[in-house]
Amino acid sequence: MICVLTGGTGGAKFVDGLRQVIPAEQITLIVNTGDDLLWWGLYVSPDIDSITYALSGLLSRERGWGVKGDTFLCLQAMKQLGEPIWFHTGDRDLAVHLLRSRLLAEGKTLSEATAIICQKLGVKARILPMSDSRVETRVDTPSGELSFEEYFVQRWYQDPVNSVRFAGASDAEPAPGVIDAITSADAVLIAPSNPITSIGPILSVPGIREALHSAKGKIAAVSPIVGNAPVAGPAGILMAAQGLSCSIAGVAKAYEDFLDLLVCDSRDARGAEGLRGKGLRVQCTQTIMSSSEDRSALARTVLSLACGGLLRDEAAAGGSISEASGEPAPTSSEQP
Amino acid sequence: MICVLTGGTGGAKFVDGLRQVIPAEQITLIVNTGDDLLWWGLYVSPDIDSITYALSGLLSRERGWGVKGDTFLCLQAMKQLGEPIWFHTGDRDLAVHLLRSRLLAEGKTLSEATAIICQKLGVKARILPMSDSRVETRVDTPSGELSFEEYFVQRWYQDPVNSVRFAGASDAEPAPGVIDAITSADAVLIAPSNPITSIGPILSVPGIREALHSAKGKIAAVSPIVGNAPVAGPAGILMAAQGLSCSIAGVAKAYEDFLDLLVCDSRDARGAEGLRGKGLRVQCTQTIMSSSEDRSALARTVLSLACGGLLRDEAAAGGSISEASGEPAPTSSEQP
Repeated sequence: MICVLTGGTGGAKFVDGLRQVIPAEQITLIVNTGDDLLWWGLYVSPDIDSITYALSGLLSRERGWGVKGDTFLCLQAMKQLGEPIWFHTGDRDLAVHLLRSRLLAEGKTLSEATAIICQKLGVKARILPMSDSRVETRVDTPSGELSFEEYFVQRWYQDPVNSVRFAGASDAEPAPGVIDAITSADAVLIAPSNPITSIGPILSVPGIREALHSAKGKIAAVSPIVGNAPVAGPAGILMAAQGLSCSIAGVAKAYEDFLDLLVCDSRDARGAEGLRGKGLRVQCTQTIMSSSEDRSALARTVLSLACGGLLRDEAAAGGSISEASGEPAPTSSEQP
Repeated sequence: MICVLTGGTGGAKFVDGLRQVIPAEQITLIVNTGDDLLWWGLYVSPDIDSITYALSGLLSRERGWGVKGDTFLCLQAMKQLGEPIWFHTGDRDLAVHLLRSRLLAEGKTLSEATAIICQKLGVKARILPMSDSRVETRVDTPSGELSFEEYFVQRWYQDPVNSVRFAGASDAEPAPGVIDAITSADAVLIAPSNPITSIGPILSVPGIREALHSAKGKIAAVSPIVGNAPVAGPAGILMAAQGLSCSIAGVAKAYEDFLDLLVCDSRDARGAEGLRGKGLRVQCTQTIMSSSEDRSALARTVLSLACGGLLRDEAAAGGSISEASGEPAPTSSEQP
């Protein structure tokens, strides 16, 4: 079993790669819910949706979120009604929000609603929200405190950021199965997601960080920072606000208390060497996922490094990775 | 001021005609809410929607319900999720259901939510739900008791009908403004709607029938029955179940305690004569509304008969109607 901590579009891409490399039944995903919002009266969980769509093959690869080929007629009608439309909800996408909202209104937990939606869409991987309690990422800016989606989507992350907090975290509990999935996994992978607002909320839930400390498998993170800049989004600004440098060193710092292996881009070979000098195992490879092949290649490399023997087709990957030698998979290259 | 009791597709067509003939500000509509349903967790009020769409110019004239040019992608996605899809909700249509549901969840009454939606869509007529309380039309069949939409839309009104009841009616109150609109109107028009399940629920609300008895204006109904058959839908079956013949006589009987004038189709001249013999004023005209012109012509005729001086362009109607002579408007013909 592989356990993946994930959120955001980078996480969805990585999971899209993973599902091509190992059987979905072997994957448990622990997903950020700090971005969840009430939108048009519906409960929307953007990261759970992206992962669900990635695993069911419905994800729009062009946009990186929402359903491929979706239309936005309800959104247009909402505009006519004077309702806010900054959060782009497609017509097909609405179906999942409607179903989830109804299930929650009927008393189901977010975990239960997620499991039902996954079953309906034929998703074989196990998707767990980080918590069934409401934990809300709040971004403090000079214009006031914003929800993450207000900061990120509505205001295009243009506001300076003073700090980030996770409202409700101290009273939250991990969702059922989360702790066991982490501690018992053969490997725990941290997707190339924003360390502050995608992985940070997960780590803010009491018990999850402790579970990572006692995980039996290796814990490997893929850096979302390449060449001292985020691949996408506001990770750099948010890391700075939380006192972390926008670099693979900053990523390593965010996870320093539990990280066994950092997978970073080949462009960060120099930084990687520096981190190795401090005792961290670091592997460089191509981490930019422009194509479907990029996604599966990165997933294969990370899996090979974090644990052997789980790949669907080890031979196709060019033979097993020698953990002892530290040799990467053929798609990666360890820089001096 | 004109007050219109309405529901169903016949009602929406009639209102579509009315808005072409008198200023919308002079119309108050009292609308059936017995068909209202929770659909995908949203509060849907089919008759209020149809009237709102008719008055805002959004109504699909092809379908007679929903928004013109609408698409059904959310519906398709709902099907993929295993949700029921027998009630066809379009993508644009969903916007109104979402907004109304959110307003109700925030504590607004159905009247208040309706007024807000009308204001957003530029509807100048006043649309009042018959009641802010839940009154549900229940159709008793050999297969059990069904909601109206289950009976009508899901099961295509194929079930034999034992009886119809209006659950919750005895505890309901007319919505604010309903009683005054009826008693003070210059004329009260009853749209060519199903007397049992479109007008019946309105009449079931305590106080509304009494208000009709004390209305200062004339009360005129347009028969939805033409040639002993309903123009559309299950009116005949439902009238029979309630002990009424499927004829203009049955319609007259349904409204006998308050009706001043029945407008029926020219094809029902014989039946009209019979009713006149019993002392009811009956006028025959073309009541089938195939075109936009048919709608406005019927509306003009009914208005002319029920009250003079309110028409936007009396001259265009070929001169005023002589109430004394009982002469119809040029588009109608009183049969011997």
